[in-house]
Amino acid sequence: MSIRYAKRIDGMNSSAVRDALKWTSKPGVISFAGGMPAPETFPLEKLAAAAEVVYRQQGQTAFQYGTTEGYLPLREKIAARHRKDGMDCTAEQIRITSGSQQGLDLTGKIFLDPGDIVVCETPSYSGAITAFNAYECEYLSIDTDEDGMIMEDLEEKLNQYGDKIKFIYVIPNFQNPSGRTWSLERRKALLQTAVKYHIPIVEDDPYGELRYEDERIPTIKSMDTTGIVIYLGTLSKVLSPGIRVGWVFASPEILEQYNKAKQGADLQTSTVAQMVANVFWEQNDLDAHILELREVYRKRRDLMLQCIEQEFPSRCQYTKPKGGLFIWVTLPEGFDTKEILPRVAENQVAYVPGDTFYPGGDVKNTLRLNFSNADEEHIIKGMQLMGAILREIVAE
Amino acid sequence: MSIRYAKRIDGMNSSAVRDALKWTSKPGVISFAGGMPAPETFPLEKLAAAAEVVYRQQGQTAFQYGTTEGYLPLREKIAARHRKDGMDCTAEQIRITSGSQQGLDLTGKIFLDPGDIVVCETPSYSGAITAFNAYECEYLSIDTDEDGMIMEDLEEKLNQYGDKIKFIYVIPNFQNPSGRTWSLERRKALLQTAVKYHIPIVEDDPYGELRYEDERIPTIKSMDTTGIVIYLGTLSKVLSPGIRVGWVFASPEILEQYNKAKQGADLQTSTVAQMVANVFWEQNDLDAHILELREVYRKRRDLMLQCIEQEFPSRCQYTKPKGGLFIWVTLPEGFDTKEILPRVAENQVAYVPGDTFYPGGDVKNTLRLNFSNADEEHIIKGMQLMGAILREIVAE
Repeated sequence: MSIRYAKRIDGMNSSAVRDALKWTSKPGVISFAGGMPAPETFPLEKLAAAAEVVYRQQGQTAFQYGTTEGYLPLREKIAARHRKDGMDCTAEQIRITSGSQQGLDLTGKIFLDPGDIVVCETPSYSGAITAFNAYECEYLSIDTDEDGMIMEDLEEKLNQYGDKIKFIYVIPNFQNPSGRTWSLERRKALLQTAVKYHIPIVEDDPYGELRYEDERIPTIKSMDTTGIVIYLGTLSKVLSPGIRVGWVFASPEILEQYNKAKQGADLQTSTVAQMVANVFWEQNDLDAHILELREVYRKRRDLMLQCIEQEFPSRCQYTKPKGGLFIWVTLPEGFDTKEILPRVAENQVAYVPGDTFYPGGDVKNTLRLNFSNADEEHIIKGMQLMGAILREIVAE
Repeated sequence: MSIRYAKRIDGMNSSAVRDALKWTSKPGVISFAGGMPAPETFPLEKLAAAAEVVYRQQGQTAFQYGTTEGYLPLREKIAARHRKDGMDCTAEQIRITSGSQQGLDLTGKIFLDPGDIVVCETPSYSGAITAFNAYECEYLSIDTDEDGMIMEDLEEKLNQYGDKIKFIYVIPNFQNPSGRTWSLERRKALLQTAVKYHIPIVEDDPYGELRYEDERIPTIKSMDTTGIVIYLGTLSKVLSPGIRVGWVFASPEILEQYNKAKQGADLQTSTVAQMVANVFWEQNDLDAHILELREVYRKRRDLMLQCIEQEFPSRCQYTKPKGGLFIWVTLPEGFDTKEILPRVAENQVAYVPGDTFYPGGDVKNTLRLNFSNADEEHIIKGMQLMGAILREIVAE
């Protein structure tokens, strides 16, 4: 039987990162592919204690339907945390999503008609591209340097394509995949430009809390006085991705549209998951937990950078991120990391080829390494195995 | 700032049922509005015992990212249950969704281009209409009688609009909102017609296990030999809606498209939720739990029917469902249940006006009552209060 699907199916490729999860879960594979937290950092005893309270004392609420907006006590905690970070935020400006991936999907749903344009960084997060592709949009990738988007290139493109551009998508902290962090000046400039052209900014910030050096730089949302910034947050990287709890922080007017889209998408995020997160947060010091994460991940980042320096051919360039989960490696022009992957995978090591982080898939010589998931022994071994192959392939 | 949204926003109305949840959660309101299970039936101690195992023994897997396809042991249990019910099913044909509402959203996403047609019953589930509306489709509502769609009307419309019709959406068991159950003959006829016209059937079956009399009628999926039926299942009504675990049961070829759509939508359903459901299922007899539910809900249905008979004006018609959660009431022509709702709500009783269950919203004199959520005392009191107002408004 031949089934007629929607046209959008043609543009919806399976995510390379998600697909990688399937074969990297084979025993023995050292995976630097996913963006997975270190599972040994999950505070399981404390989560179990929180679940105990929720299941036994709040169970009739927790296992029932709840509101689409999300569980109010959790929304209040998120808002309070944002206020502590200098953002003007109340629970009314927070809506819970099923991970921040759903925030991306709902963003596409409420903003994008076929042919509309999303402005993004070069490279950008592949999962966002997967989400937006379902709404048949086009992309304008803006040139970037170490401090973020280059404003001249952005303005030029806004002038040329203004009407078709629906929003500007950025990950200013420890970007996935590049590890790049935007400077304060560049954040201010982006906000100013967005206001000037009346184009919303979608600020995706899953990694902001995972900083391993230097001082925190204010979010773009914290400088937003007009409601033009839509901020996406998540508990995936600071607590657990398996619970699927994220949020959108935006003006109530914009959130009304998110709410309508979420009603159709999944009615609501799991009440149980929200309430367990809420009690965990009540009973524990989230900041102390994040400090522990930072210690673990800083060490792994430092070790991986050191291994790359020692093991990789000198013609490979790589970023030195100040936080987050990823190091971005660039091979000399002409090499194709997708072609190299099978040889590396034969040696039981996995990474994500970089082409998936470019909307056009046209850059072939980059790859993303995750340093949070593997322990120190595996980082050393994996980098040695991978380095040996790269040295063979990429002549020194 | 004026923000330019996608065109689909115009067709995305906020769900009347979801919105009702907000004001029916006020203290003192007797709500027959939502489709909520009885919270006192949630097996909280057993769920807590399952969570204990998952959190303390399987926590590093449970709180981590998992595959988009869903947790394999849970998919295997679902498949085994379907096999027991006479369906040819393996885990490969099951993909986990975040409630079956997400199954509906993903169905819209993979099938519907703007202007495409969904064929549905008259009336049909409002949440499906909310989900599909986001993909800017049109609807053809088929005339129905007590046994399901009238095949002559269906064939006539398939002949006329064949090319634009992407799928036929039906709820053959204890339909939401009408409570109607399709006869075996009508199920066979629908399948035959769908095969003849090469149009997929989406068989939504959240209530099938909640039968209070007579014998089970085979699902359409159980008679499907060509893979033309896409079956949506859920744990929401037989275990808990708050965990948000549903599934799609379809051919691997079709599921490939669901998988791509789900990757963009939320990456995966909560690993924790899936694993807790899985261990609960391992440790307990789900059938015994469902038998208990049936006892509770059968009594509530009988009581509500008895109250309606006594309290409602005789010119109100109503269905006598053999299962599920809903009774469907039809007032005489000319009355508008949306206009009547504020008067009923003043007396602390809530229902859902029926217009939301018609894609065109053009039928005004129907309403939906849920009998599963309120206990017997509240059913009696609520029906008395509501009956008194209806007797005033609808002259005997």
